[in-house]
Amino acid sequence: MTDTTDGLETRILAVYDSLTPKQQMLARFILDNRYFASFASASELGAKVDASAATVIRFCQTLGYDGLPGLQGAIRAELPSYLTAVERLEHRLTALPASTDLPRHVFAIDVQNIQRTASAIDQAIFEAAVRQLAAAREIVVVATGVTAAAGFFLAYSLEVIGLRARAVLDGGVAQAVTLTHLGAEDVVVGLGVWRYVRSTLDALHQAKEQGTTVIAITDSIVSPLARHADYAFEVATEGAMHSLSMTGVMSLINALVAAASLVDPSRTSRALQRIDQQFVARELLIS
Amino acid sequence: MTDTTDGLETRILAVYDSLTPKQQMLARFILDNRYFASFASASELGAKVDASAATVIRFCQTLGYDGLPGLQGAIRAELPSYLTAVERLEHRLTALPASTDLPRHVFAIDVQNIQRTASAIDQAIFEAAVRQLAAAREIVVVATGVTAAAGFFLAYSLEVIGLRARAVLDGGVAQAVTLTHLGAEDVVVGLGVWRYVRSTLDALHQAKEQGTTVIAITDSIVSPLARHADYAFEVATEGAMHSLSMTGVMSLINALVAAASLVDPSRTSRALQRIDQQFVARELLIS
Amino acid sequence: MTDTTDGLETRILAVYDSLTPKQQMLARFILDNRYFASFASASELGAKVDASAATVIRFCQTLGYDGLPGLQGAIRAELPSYLTAVERLEHRLTALPASTDLPRHVFAIDVQNIQRTASAIDQAIFEAAVRQLAAAREIVVVATGVTAAAGFFLAYSLEVIGLRARAVLDGGVAQAVTLTHLGAEDVVVGLGVWRYVRSTLDALHQAKEQGTTVIAITDSIVSPLARHADYAFEVATEGAMHSLSMTGVMSLINALVAAASLVDPSRTSRALQRIDQQFVARELLIS
Amino acid sequence: MTDTTDGLETRILAVYDSLTPKQQMLARFILDNRYFASFASASELGAKVDASAATVIRFCQTLGYDGLPGLQGAIRAELPSYLTAVERLEHRLTALPASTDLPRHVFAIDVQNIQRTASAIDQAIFEAAVRQLAAAREIVVVATGVTAAAGFFLAYSLEVIGLRARAVLDGGVAQAVTLTHLGAEDVVVGLGVWRYVRSTLDALHQAKEQGTTVIAITDSIVSPLARHADYAFEVATEGAMHSLSMTGVMSLINALVAAASLVDPSRTSRALQRIDQQFVARELLIS
Repeated sequence: MTDTTDGLETRILAVYDSLTPKQQMLARFILDNRYFASFASASELGAKVDASAATVIRFCQTLGYDGLPGLQGAIRAELPSYLTAVERLEHRLTALPASTDLPRHVFAIDVQNIQRTASAIDQAIFEAAVRQLAAAREIVVVATGVTAAAGFFLAYSLEVIGLRARAVLDGGVAQAVTLTHLGAEDVVVGLGVWRYVRSTLDALHQAKEQGTTVIAITDSIVSPLARHADYAFEVATEGAMHSLSMTGVMSLINALVAAASLVDPSRTSRALQRIDQQFVARELLIS
Repeated sequence: MTDTTDGLETRILAVYDSLTPKQQMLARFILDNRYFASFASASELGAKVDASAATVIRFCQTLGYDGLPGLQGAIRAELPSYLTAVERLEHRLTALPASTDLPRHVFAIDVQNIQRTASAIDQAIFEAAVRQLAAAREIVVVATGVTAAAGFFLAYSLEVIGLRARAVLDGGVAQAVTLTHLGAEDVVVGLGVWRYVRSTLDALHQAKEQGTTVIAITDSIVSPLARHADYAFEVATEGAMHSLSMTGVMSLINALVAAASLVDPSRTSRALQRIDQQFVARELLIS
Repeated sequence: MTDTTDGLETRILAVYDSLTPKQQMLARFILDNRYFASFASASELGAKVDASAATVIRFCQTLGYDGLPGLQGAIRAELPSYLTAVERLEHRLTALPASTDLPRHVFAIDVQNIQRTASAIDQAIFEAAVRQLAAAREIVVVATGVTAAAGFFLAYSLEVIGLRARAVLDGGVAQAVTLTHLGAEDVVVGLGVWRYVRSTLDALHQAKEQGTTVIAITDSIVSPLARHADYAFEVATEGAMHSLSMTGVMSLINALVAAASLVDPSRTSRALQRIDQQFVARELLIS
Repeated sequence: MTDTTDGLETRILAVYDSLTPKQQMLARFILDNRYFASFASASELGAKVDASAATVIRFCQTLGYDGLPGLQGAIRAELPSYLTAVERLEHRLTALPASTDLPRHVFAIDVQNIQRTASAIDQAIFEAAVRQLAAAREIVVVATGVTAAAGFFLAYSLEVIGLRARAVLDGGVAQAVTLTHLGAEDVVVGLGVWRYVRSTLDALHQAKEQGTTVIAITDSIVSPLARHADYAFEVATEGAMHSLSMTGVMSLINALVAAASLVDPSRTSRALQRIDQQFVARELLIS
């Protein structure tokens, strides 16, 4: 039996040997994929190890939780937050050998972030999302906090290839006002990673209510953003120290914009040429 | 003899066999490194192939140019611009086999961008720049166009770890006014890639005049930005289609911020904790 | 006796003749100053007609309310909101004679807004606030929605005269992060008018907790913003149609900046000269 | 005869008594309206005093100038700039009697700014501009420096009444990119006052080239902005100290938005209601 004050790992260890092979697979999967497990439904979780939803729920009860919501609440309470990021920072400060080459460590993690983001791409969703972007009357990109810069980059890059796009980066009153104009011909792209900012989720709600297509770029296909989206992309955001990395997100944006530029190449050409003419005429660039 | 209307490659081919081995090395180096060659001094260029500045200048004259400036003008006139980006786009559209997996192609290029950016890091410059950031009274990040989002990310990330930072992203009047306040205790970080935007270079000029430390993040250590900087970083920005990639820049920023967070870990911890308290108190995050 | 579903005016009319002269004064004052009455304490209200707090509370009970909070809830439920603005719009559409000169009507109201704002200035508070601004290490102006532009103008105008100032205009995550750096040497200016935006009030809370001086520019000295401020200014914001006017706010800002420019005239001169040199050197202006 | 190093006033005084009555009227008009005179054509100037263009040119020659351009260059060299604003500041510092009530002085000037702005309104132009705004597919407001905040307010206020509007406030690369999308169905509003910022004029040029309707809000109907506009408004911007006042501009914006809200009252109502619903649903306001 497990103690109700124990953490998830302790509870699993206490009963692990008595679990069925399927339950052991489930236990390992949950420990390795806590973000996913913290938001997935019982059937989504079960599908990962070829088990039924009922098996998942019994597993939760075996661990002493009040069903799946109980287990998920326990995971969320333990998941890294800014505060545990502080702890990670302090831990790493003492743990890092003096000889560690920090920049190279960061670059290595970011190569992994790109590779993991690449491997999570679903080609059919990618193509459908690109078609939506290329056909939109107007695109509004909603992002804030650590994802704000990536959202800004996406909106700018879409404008450069001839699409009407703008970024809304700080939630609040201005976001609500700007989104009010959107309808079925428009697209909202929402960016957000753990710990998800409420105002971005509000934006996706508002867009859905108004019949606007929603594309989410987020860290899990079961994140709250993904659940409110017509098309969702999962990005890897592992960081070296306290914070998350947006490198995988930026590379995904490169792919989306490159593909969108090919949907109507003559529109793309015209936009690039007109922009270039302005840059030259106004002497904005160093000759 | 060369025809004065010929391009650089034609001129080099016309005389290549009659060149000395050292001149041939120089010719190959210039053809492979046109960005560098278009801004480097004669002695910088010569150093790459172990030749003197005088050798470089004679080489230019052999090709029929009026010294190094003549050769550099010719390179710049041929270098890719937004307009040739249009041509690249059109070329790639016809050249891309239908089966090409565009997103994976983009991700592969971005992995290379990170690896090249990593290999260009000079550890001593990295550490010195990090010390400057960590000790600054105020940090102003100046960027615009394709680098604006990365500049925004840098300023936000520095604020999160407890440094006073802000981004100025559109040149013009507001940039001039904000920079007016900076002095010797402050740091300006300028981001810019080919084709360099004049207003960002103006910002670095203004900063230098006021005695402010300048860090440049740019695509060549001989770019105009690097020449106005106390510390310069070279980033790889190869793009799959018409545009440049900021993935290498973003990964470099991750490295800089991670290192800066370790300079004064207790300051970093306090900042993260204070921010977390506000996020919780104001219910900005989804629980 | 009054009916509990009646509005404030109906209740007052029903009992008016039976009220004491002092209570009648109080009734008239409340009807003429509903914004004030909806937030004031019993003693603040009483002071306006030279009555005690107990008199105010008895008056509320006479009207059938559960004390002052009951009366205030009733006022707020009746106060103009965006929705009643819709109604005003519709009413005015039908009520406006075809010959009405709308622009001249708007200008006339704005002249009144300035005159009312001027008459509400307390010279001692004005001078103290100006001294705080001129002595601040950094000034952060917080505003959003209809007041955002005025906040932007204030921050820019303060920068022009040599003070370190920035505007935070959209609440949310970025606001919380930026305010984290402020301490006792800094100043926050918060702008907000009915219906007060929660995030601006959060900013003033955060500033107070961190020991930062708070100046409020708001539509009532008993507004929630004024209650969290060390110095508060009351501005008139009457609009011709559905919306509020910021003309009075802008004129107050002109006065604050003009006065702040005189606190240290040589600093002001130096800042203006340095900005002018940049404008000329960078050819930002039309000659 | 006049000395070529003399200023305009000295030259006029030197010959005043020998001028014809018409030339004396012209001299007085020019001294009283230097902004206008510095940009007007000979026939525009002549029309003000019922004289021919030829009379204006002969007058300039009488003063020793090389025609009208010579006189205009002289005026511009003498017109207030930021530098002479420094001088005004220093002058006023010594000239202001200690007892001067600075805030009330500012408010009085701003009442005048509104009254002068009101008296300069041409009803037909006002109505035509409002129709253009109300019918636009998209409205882009371009402004920077001292007018940036007013431009921001205009864009926000237009969004609130259900029009698609955005502000571009810093010139540069982002402005050029965003304007590229505009065509004949769109409207650009440009704001600018002496000393006119080049990038805002560039924006109006770009808009005209693309067939976009241009509305200018500026300090003179002969300013460079007005000359590039389909509809131009003249605003009074007198300031108490070194800087210009935007109070007249803000009041004009109130008038434009109020009138635009009446063009399609049901659209306005729907927009206000939708925004209100979002504010309530997201708990953005203090209840």
